[in-house]
Amino acid sequence: MKHTISVLLRNQPGVLSRVTGLFSGRGYNIESLCVAVTMDPEVSCLTLVSHGDPPIVEQIMKQLNKLIDVLKVTNISENEYVEREMVLLRVNANAGSRAEVLRIVDIFRGKVVDVATRTYTLEITGSASKIQAVIDILRPLGIQEIVRTGTIAMARGSKK
Amino acid sequence: MKHTISVLLRNQPGVLSRVTGLFSGRGYNIESLCVAVTMDPEVSCLTLVSHGDPPIVEQIMKQLNKLIDVLKVTNISENEYVEREMVLLRVNANAGSRAEVLRIVDIFRGKVVDVATRTYTLEITGSASKIQAVIDILRPLGIQEIVRTGTIAMARGSKK
Repeated sequence: MKHTISVLLRNQPGVLSRVTGLFSGRGYNIESLCVAVTMDPEVSCLTLVSHGDPPIVEQIMKQLNKLIDVLKVTNISENEYVEREMVLLRVNANAGSRAEVLRIVDIFRGKVVDVATRTYTLEITGSASKIQAVIDILRPLGIQEIVRTGTIAMARGSKK
Repeated sequence: MKHTISVLLRNQPGVLSRVTGLFSGRGYNIESLCVAVTMDPEVSCLTLVSHGDPPIVEQIMKQLNKLIDVLKVTNISENEYVEREMVLLRVNANAGSRAEVLRIVDIFRGKVVDVATRTYTLEITGSASKIQAVIDILRPLGIQEIVRTGTIAMARGSKK
């Protein structure tokens, strides 16, 4: 079962390593992880996606809550939420395939963020499954490089 | 000095914790970090942004290279590169401010990804400085929540 967990943490060296260590200590793989500063420069927000049985995830969340510098832990996937991911893709764009690449970018409402003689660099956002669909469609045209952010998520609706 | 470092690593529990531990062991803060799978499901790509003196960063990169399960380490910011970040923002959108919020979304070529009675959830992509500009402009209208992915980056031009 997929879990998307959001952790607010104080911006201190070591806290990230303690959080990721909690998962690896249980031989429990993190599928994707994003961490960046919030509006408060002292506080970062970490979003991680992992697969696991609910009891194990609950146990890990309890242990996360006990860590120094961890302010709040939420299992976002327990309620309605919006999840998005971004990907940068460098794809082959020769005379024969440019039009097709641009059509795909247009359909997926992406952007061309860099152009070289024989390649386009594309930015696409969406759910993890949409990103996977784009990759599958572009693969036959030749993907040279790919960098994904991993999922970030937010509860739907207004703050309670 | 800002450094954007890209690390290709084998998808094994523990490797992420070892990478982040290398930074915290030197009291060296990671500003943002993204890790997600590449086209090869066995390999993940990690992008991290950190500030530090070039000699320290060089030393850390050497140590990263020595880690088991680390396949490749690149200091992307040494050459021309494209960097992008995504942010999800939940902002107040009452009768008086909705039009203004939509104008800002339009100017920054963002998307409204969720609507509630009194809030819009927005998705904006761009460089870290553009994201900061959006946050500064939306702040007076009332930002309820913010989640950033952190920067991902790719060298410009075709692969050598």
